[in-house]
Amino acid sequence: MANEKFSSQLLSRAVDEFGKLPGIGHKTALRLVLHLLRQDEEHVNGFADAITHLRKDVKYCKVCHNISDTEICSICGNPRRDASTVCVVENIQDVMAIENTQSYRGLYHVLGGVISPMDGVGPADLEIASLVERVHAGDIQEVILALSPTMEGDTTNFFIFRKLADANVTISVIARGIAQNDELQYTDEVTLGRSIINRTPFKS
Amino acid sequence: MANEKFSSQLLSRAVDEFGKLPGIGHKTALRLVLHLLRQDEEHVNGFADAITHLRKDVKYCKVCHNISDTEICSICGNPRRDASTVCVVENIQDVMAIENTQSYRGLYHVLGGVISPMDGVGPADLEIASLVERVHAGDIQEVILALSPTMEGDTTNFFIFRKLADANVTISVIARGIAQNDELQYTDEVTLGRSIINRTPFKS
Repeated sequence: MANEKFSSQLLSRAVDEFGKLPGIGHKTALRLVLHLLRQDEEHVNGFADAITHLRKDVKYCKVCHNISDTEICSICGNPRRDASTVCVVENIQDVMAIENTQSYRGLYHVLGGVISPMDGVGPADLEIASLVERVHAGDIQEVILALSPTMEGDTTNFFIFRKLADANVTISVIARGIAQNDELQYTDEVTLGRSIINRTPFKS
Repeated sequence: MANEKFSSQLLSRAVDEFGKLPGIGHKTALRLVLHLLRQDEEHVNGFADAITHLRKDVKYCKVCHNISDTEICSICGNPRRDASTVCVVENIQDVMAIENTQSYRGLYHVLGGVISPMDGVGPADLEIASLVERVHAGDIQEVILALSPTMEGDTTNFFIFRKLADANVTISVIARGIAQNDELQYTDEVTLGRSIINRTPFKS
């Protein structure tokens, strides 16, 4: 199918462009392009404009490196957020995920990845130096490490922990244990073992 | 998730636009937009340009109504195609599907749909009049009906058959029967019954 001959080069080009997106195969790309073809020209221009505009004008917050329309993002710039707590996350999707819980009122620090020698990502490629600087500048009392519970996440946690050893801050890590609605018998041993060791007082 | 607050309106808008595409949910839209954000600005502009350009400049062949960059499509304009045979299909995807078989050297006629009273699609909404006109203009010796074997497809076939009753052309319909590699025992009764009735001489 990939070498399919289209009777329109314009169509062929648009399908090729869509097909470059992750998880979008040739057939899906064709379906999406034909859908756009059936829309008003105004609608299609709006679609294209939203993308070019985003790529051209998007900024990353100077403080936390979260995606933003302004120099300082709306979270860092919000005086009602708790500026004494910083939650360290891997990427902007994680910021969104935590914001969606509505359980956190502090600020963030987006690393832009985790340390992964296999992928050639070292500490210098991440926003770790800026985190250390931010912590040393004062004000911050607690750093919450909220990276994924993988080997790379754990390595990065440990690296940050060491870098902040001489700073006067509490360093915590998000709780690991069995997830809501998970079945105990199907939970892996590491998770289950940890959740027993790190048991918390029962609250009714 | 749909009411998720983004820290960037630009991001929010781009995700909304992607989310309007069929089969693309909010999470996929976000993933695609974040992928585009990581690409070069040139690449992103190329993507947007391919879409606006397609919508603005695409044409439909004046003869067969297939998608085309020119007034007459590359199939109708090809002198090496058999202009005496016209294959009637529902949409441009069907043209591509038949072209991919490399088993057909005639021309096409794209109806733009099938008669479907439930969806408010009547004969006047389709390119049936132009087909009749095309057949009456001469040259065409055979009309192959290649619509989907559904109630709507059959209705449309019958309607076209009646409209062309007084024209001096052979009207055929693509073969229906069990598909290659299908298992006989799992084939539905209608298909299997038809495939026995419409058996063809064995060719080794």
